Amino acid sequence: MFNSFGAIYKFTTFGESHGMAIGVVIDGVPAGVEFDYSFLENELKRRRPGANRFSTQRKESDTPEVLSGIFENKTTGTPISIVIFNKDQKSKDYSNIKDIFRPGHADYTYYQKYGIRDYRGGGRSSARETAARVAAGAVAKMILKEFNIKIESAVIEIGGIRADKIDYNYAKDSIIYAANKDIEKEWIELIDKSKQEHNSLGGVVKLRIQNVPVGLGEPIYYKLDNILASALMSINATKGIYIGNINSHKLTGKENNDEMNKDGFISNNAGGILGGISNGEDIEVEIYFKPTPSIFQPQKSIDIYGNEVEVNLQGRHDPIVAIRGSVVVEAMAACVVVDMMLLNATRKIENLKKIYL
Amino acid sequence: MFNSFGAIYKFTTFGESHGMAIGVVIDGVPAGVEFDYSFLENELKRRRPGANRFSTQRKESDTPEVLSGIFENKTTGTPISIVIFNKDQKSKDYSNIKDIFRPGHADYTYYQKYGIRDYRGGGRSSARETAARVAAGAVAKMILKEFNIKIESAVIEIGGIRADKIDYNYAKDSIIYAANKDIEKEWIELIDKSKQEHNSLGGVVKLRIQNVPVGLGEPIYYKLDNILASALMSINATKGIYIGNINSHKLTGKENNDEMNKDGFISNNAGGILGGISNGEDIEVEIYFKPTPSIFQPQKSIDIYGNEVEVNLQGRHDPIVAIRGSVVVEAMAACVVVDMMLLNATRKIENLKKIYL
Amino acid sequence: MFNSFGAIYKFTTFGESHGMAIGVVIDGVPAGVEFDYSFLENELKRRRPGANRFSTQRKESDTPEVLSGIFENKTTGTPISIVIFNKDQKSKDYSNIKDIFRPGHADYTYYQKYGIRDYRGGGRSSARETAARVAAGAVAKMILKEFNIKIESAVIEIGGIRADKIDYNYAKDSIIYAANKDIEKEWIELIDKSKQEHNSLGGVVKLRIQNVPVGLGEPIYYKLDNILASALMSINATKGIYIGNINSHKLTGKENNDEMNKDGFISNNAGGILGGISNGEDIEVEIYFKPTPSIFQPQKSIDIYGNEVEVNLQGRHDPIVAIRGSVVVEAMAACVVVDMMLLNATRKIENLKKIYL
Amino acid sequence: MFNSFGAIYKFTTFGESHGMAIGVVIDGVPAGVEFDYSFLENELKRRRPGANRFSTQRKESDTPEVLSGIFENKTTGTPISIVIFNKDQKSKDYSNIKDIFRPGHADYTYYQKYGIRDYRGGGRSSARETAARVAAGAVAKMILKEFNIKIESAVIEIGGIRADKIDYNYAKDSIIYAANKDIEKEWIELIDKSKQEHNSLGGVVKLRIQNVPVGLGEPIYYKLDNILASALMSINATKGIYIGNINSHKLTGKENNDEMNKDGFISNNAGGILGGISNGEDIEVEIYFKPTPSIFQPQKSIDIYGNEVEVNLQGRHDPIVAIRGSVVVEAMAACVVVDMMLLNATRKIENLKKIYL
Repeated sequence: MFNSFGAIYKFTTFGESHGMAIGVVIDGVPAGVEFDYSFLENELKRRRPGANRFSTQRKESDTPEVLSGIFENKTTGTPISIVIFNKDQKSKDYSNIKDIFRPGHADYTYYQKYGIRDYRGGGRSSARETAARVAAGAVAKMILKEFNIKIESAVIEIGGIRADKIDYNYAKDSIIYAANKDIEKEWIELIDKSKQEHNSLGGVVKLRIQNVPVGLGEPIYYKLDNILASALMSINATKGIYIGNINSHKLTGKENNDEMNKDGFISNNAGGILGGISNGEDIEVEIYFKPTPSIFQPQKSIDIYGNEVEVNLQGRHDPIVAIRGSVVVEAMAACVVVDMMLLNATRKIENLKKIYL
Repeated sequence: MFNSFGAIYKFTTFGESHGMAIGVVIDGVPAGVEFDYSFLENELKRRRPGANRFSTQRKESDTPEVLSGIFENKTTGTPISIVIFNKDQKSKDYSNIKDIFRPGHADYTYYQKYGIRDYRGGGRSSARETAARVAAGAVAKMILKEFNIKIESAVIEIGGIRADKIDYNYAKDSIIYAANKDIEKEWIELIDKSKQEHNSLGGVVKLRIQNVPVGLGEPIYYKLDNILASALMSINATKGIYIGNINSHKLTGKENNDEMNKDGFISNNAGGILGGISNGEDIEVEIYFKPTPSIFQPQKSIDIYGNEVEVNLQGRHDPIVAIRGSVVVEAMAACVVVDMMLLNATRKIENLKKIYL
Repeated sequence: MFNSFGAIYKFTTFGESHGMAIGVVIDGVPAGVEFDYSFLENELKRRRPGANRFSTQRKESDTPEVLSGIFENKTTGTPISIVIFNKDQKSKDYSNIKDIFRPGHADYTYYQKYGIRDYRGGGRSSARETAARVAAGAVAKMILKEFNIKIESAVIEIGGIRADKIDYNYAKDSIIYAANKDIEKEWIELIDKSKQEHNSLGGVVKLRIQNVPVGLGEPIYYKLDNILASALMSINATKGIYIGNINSHKLTGKENNDEMNKDGFISNNAGGILGGISNGEDIEVEIYFKPTPSIFQPQKSIDIYGNEVEVNLQGRHDPIVAIRGSVVVEAMAACVVVDMMLLNATRKIENLKKIYL
Repeated sequence: MFNSFGAIYKFTTFGESHGMAIGVVIDGVPAGVEFDYSFLENELKRRRPGANRFSTQRKESDTPEVLSGIFENKTTGTPISIVIFNKDQKSKDYSNIKDIFRPGHADYTYYQKYGIRDYRGGGRSSARETAARVAAGAVAKMILKEFNIKIESAVIEIGGIRADKIDYNYAKDSIIYAANKDIEKEWIELIDKSKQEHNSLGGVVKLRIQNVPVGLGEPIYYKLDNILASALMSINATKGIYIGNINSHKLTGKENNDEMNKDGFISNNAGGILGGISNGEDIEVEIYFKPTPSIFQPQKSIDIYGNEVEVNLQGRHDPIVAIRGSVVVEAMAACVVVDMMLLNATRKIENLKKIYL
C-alpha cells in the first residue's frame, strides 16, 4: 500500500540507498508486450548518477536484472520484477551523520516516525529509490509505444532563470536536459558558480504528453489530474505542480476557457485535461523542485539526543535535483497514463462487447 | 475505487447536480467519536450556494440526512451515510445546452468517455458534488478536534491581486473568505466589475494545518504531500498546488533548508513536510483555482454532431469558484490528516503493544 | 475499505437493521447499460422477509430508491446509489436484549471491538444488510445478461437431509428455493417441526454459473476461486464453501483430473476453475450455512457487566437462513463475475488495441 | 493488485517456477520488530521440496536473500524484500509439455487468458510461488510472537482416511505433518501405495490459531472469516474451507449456538469467529486440498492447436500437496492475523488517544 503506486498497472518499490539492492515489482502489465531490455537500460542510464559533473559522482552502473514476468522476450501478464544491486555501497564511515538530522532531509521525520532509521545515504528516503520508478516507467513506455503516445520533458527553469522557449528534442540530449541551447549555456555557468559556493539550486521541469486518447481519467477521485499530481508530488524534492497555463488562476473565464471549432480545441490553457479527463490535447504540466538539501556549508541542526550541532556534509551530491528528476517525472507520467488506459478500457459497455462477444 | 478517497478513513461520494440527491458514505470512522450534527450543518452552510451575491444563486437548503453509523449520538465504527436531497432540481429547460459542449466544462470529455452524459447542470462533474466532501470533512474535523488539530483556509489572491497578509480568523467570517479586510474591499469591487462584464475570475486559496503530530505520511507513494496533492487537485477547477514557500524552486539550498535548534525548526520553507512526513511545523499549501468556466458571453464551441455553434449560457454561477472552493480545501485536508493518523498509528511495534498488551 | 467489495465493480454498503435506511453505492458500472428497475425490485422481493412462514415476519416493503447514476434509463458510468428506507423500525422495547449478548450472534464481538453497539435488531450485523448486496447483484446481473451469463442457486440440504437431484428452474419458484419437488415437501415438514420446537436449522446452498468466458480470475491473489470464497464467506451465517466436486480431497489424481478431448473438458470436478481462472465449464460451488442463531428457547449467556443471564428471545426470525441466503449467494457471485470480466478485459495487449487503435 | 495480499500488512509476490528467482516484497511491517533470519530459513525449510520421499525431489536450497527493510537486525518500517534464486532451473527439455495442456493444471486457462505462457514447470502457477508466501508468513510470525499468538497446523485427512485425534505438537515434527502417530503410519503406507500406482492423493489440513485478541476482523467485507477464506483458497490445490464445527450446517440452532458463562464461551462451534470478528476462542479452520494433478499415467488432453493428445508426464512431484500445503496455510493465516491486528488497532477513538495524546 505505502510503497505501491497505481490501480491496475501497479508497481511496488523496495530498497535503501546503501542496502543490498533496490528494485521494483510491476503488476498488471498486459500479456504480449514486446520487452525491450536495452530500452530499459537506456532509461536507467538517463537517470544514472555519475554521468557528468552535473550529477552526484556516486558511481553506479545501475544494471537492471529482470527476475520474472518475461518469457521468450514478451510479457506474460505475471509480475515483472527488476532488481538493481547496489555496487557502490562501500561501508564508508557514517559516524558524522549517524546521530544528526541533516537540514532539508528526511532524517528527523523518519527517526521520529519509526524510532529507527537506516542513516546510510538517506536509506529509503534517498533519491536512489527513483531508479526503481524509472524501471517501472520504462516498461510503461514500452506499452505506450504501441499506441504512439509520447512522453517528454525538459528543464525549463534553474535558479529562478526561466527558458523562453522549449525544444523537447534538444532537451533530450542536453547534458542538463535544458529546454534550449542558449539557456543551457547560461545555466551551466550558474550551476558551476553554485558548486564553487558549495551551494545548490532549485528548478522547474516541464512535462508534455502527446497523442493521449480522449477519455483517460476516472472522476471524481481518480481523475487524470489528481493522480498525475500524486505521482509527481511523490518524487523527491518536488514542492508543487501546475497543469496547463500557469497563469490560469490570474485569468478571467473569457481568457482561460478553451473554445472549440470543428478542428477541435482552439487553445490549450487546460493542459489537456477537462473535468479530470483527457481531452485529446497535449497534457502539459510544470513541476517545481526545491534545491538539493545536501550542501557543503556549515548548517545548524540537532542530534537525536536534542543537542544542538553544526552539520558539515561531505560527499557526492547533485548540484540540482531537477535535472535527473526530469527523467523520474517522465517515468511516473508514463505509469499514470498506462494505468488510466487500463481503467478507461472498461468504462463503456460497448468496449466490453468488443472483447467478450 | 473511482469515487472513493482515502485508505482507512475512506469516503465514497455519489450523485448528480440535478439528480435526486448527492451523498457520501464514510467508512473507517473510529467508534466512540461524539457526533456534532449542528457542526455538520454549519460546515455545509459555509459551502452552500445562494448565501450572497458572490456565489451562485441556486437555492439549496443543503440539509444533511444522516442515515447510518451513529447511535446515541456517537459513531459506532460502521459506515456513516449522509444524503442531501436536491430540492432545487426543477425540470428546467436544458435544450440549449443538451447537445453542446460548454467551453471550460467537462461536457466534451464526459461525452467522449462514456458515450452518454447527464447534461442537467453538469451532472456528476458539477461542483455540487463537493457538498458531499464537505460532509466527509466535517466528520473528520470532529475527530481532529479531539487532538486539537486545526485546519483553516483563506482566499489570498483573486484576479491576480494578492493579499499581503493573511488573517485566518478574519477570513473565516469574511463574506468572500478574504485573507484580510483591506483586500476584501478591493476584491469585492473587482468581482462586482467582473460580474457586470459577464465574466469570471480565478484565485488562490491558502491552507494551514496546525498542531499536526510529527510522523504523518507513509513513504514512498502515500506521502503526506502527494496524497494532499491528490486530494486538493481532485477539487473542481484546481490547476496547481504548492507546499511551503512558493519560491523554493528559485532558492538555493542554503536559503531553502530549514535549520534546527533545540527549540525545533528555525524556519518553515518546507511547509511542515519533510520526506513526505509531517515534521510538526504548520502545514501550508497554496491551491490555484482557474476562473469559473461558466460565463455569460458568447463563446465558440461544437455540438455532439461536430457542428460549430455559439454557446450562450444563462443561469446561476459563482463569479469565482476559489471562494467556496476554500471550504472544500479544508474538508479534503481534514480527511487526509485523519487518514494519515490512522495509518501512522501502527507503524511502530511499540504502538501496537500499547493497544494489545 | 471495510464495507466495500470488488476491485473495479466495487460496491459499498451502509446502514443498520433498525436505523433510518440501508443502502449501497455501486462504483465502476460501465456506461450504457440498460437499467431495469423492475428487475431490481424483483430481486429484492426474492430476498425480502415476510413473504411466507419460512422467513421472518418482519414486514419490509424493501422499495429501492435509485438516487444517482442513471440517466434516461441508462447507466452513465457514475456511481449508482440505491437506498432502502427502513419502514418497520418502530421503536420497540429492546430493554431485554440491550445489555446482553445473544448466543450465536455478533453482540459480544461488536461490543468488545467497538465499545459501543447499536443493539436494535442486530444493528449493522443484521442480515438486513444483505438487501443492499442484492441490489448490487441485481445491477451486476443486468450487465451479465448482455453476455448471456446465467447465475442460479438452489437449496440442496436442510437439517442434514440432502437433495439427490438439483433442478435450478424448480428452485427458482419454490417457496423455500428447494432443489426439487420431493425434497421440498420433506423439508417443509422438517422446518415446521423445528419451528414448533422453537429451534432453527442449518443448510446448504448450491450455486451454478453458466456461460462464463474462459480467462476470468487474476492469479495469484485475486483468483476467481479465492475472491468467490471471500464474497460468499462474507454472507451472514456462512461457515464453509467448496468449489467443484465436494469429494475432490478424497479422490486420487487420476479420478479427480478433468481430462480433455476436442469437445472440451470431459468432466468438471474442478467446478469450472483451474489455477484460479475460469475454464469455460459451469462454475459450481456449495455454501454451508449454520442454523439461525435466534431461537426461542432459554439460553445461557452473560451481560455487558459480566453477569450470567438467561436469554429469552422473542420476535421474528427466519427458521433457516440458508433459504433467503441463496438469493444473496447469487448476488455476490454476480458482482464477482462482473468484476472479473472488467479486470480480465485488459490482460492482453491485443484487447487494448481493439479499444484504442 | 493481482499479486498482492493484505490491506496494511501487504505482500506482493513474483517469479516463475523455472525463471531466475521467486520473491516477495512485504509492505506495512511495523518498525522495531526483531528480525530472526534463522527462523525465516527454518520456515522455508519446512515447506522446501526434496526433503523426503513425500515431497517432490526437486532440489532447491531455498536460501532467502533479504534485500531491504532491515537495519541492525530490526525492521525499519520500509518494505522487506526477500528473494530466492532458482538454482535447479536447468534448461531441461520441455518439448513434451510445451504445447499441451496437462489435466488438472492451469496450462489451459493461462494460455487462453494471456495468449502466452511460461510452460517451464508450470511457470507462475507452480506451487513454487508458495515459498514466497512462507517468507511473508515468517515475518508475520515474528510479529505475532511479540503478542504470544500461536499458529499451528496438522494434516488430518489423506485419501479419505481421517485422523480421530489431533496433536499439533506431534504434527509439527511428523515427516508428513500427520495429526498423530497412529494415523501417520497408516497414511505413509497409503502414500507409498499411491506412488507405486503412479497416482496421487487429496487431503485435509486443520489450522488452529490461539491467543487471538477479541475484536479482529472488519465487518462487512473484510471480516476475519471471509479474508481468511480468501487467503486459504488462494493456495494452490485448495477447493474448500470450513470454519469451526464442520457439522454446523447439519445442526439445529440449539446445538450449534455457543452459550456463555462468566468464564467465557462454553463451546466453540463458531471456530472463534462471530459476525466476522474474533471472539477470543481458538480459531479453527479445515482446508480441503485436491490431489496433486501431476500423475504418471497416460491422460487424455488436447494441444494448443486443438488436437487430441495423450499426456505422459515425467519428473518430480509431491504425491500429496496437502502436506507441504499445511506450511503455506500457516503462513497465509499469520499474514491475515497481523493485518487484522493493524486494522483493528484504530477502530476505537480511545486507541488513537493512547497513541497521540
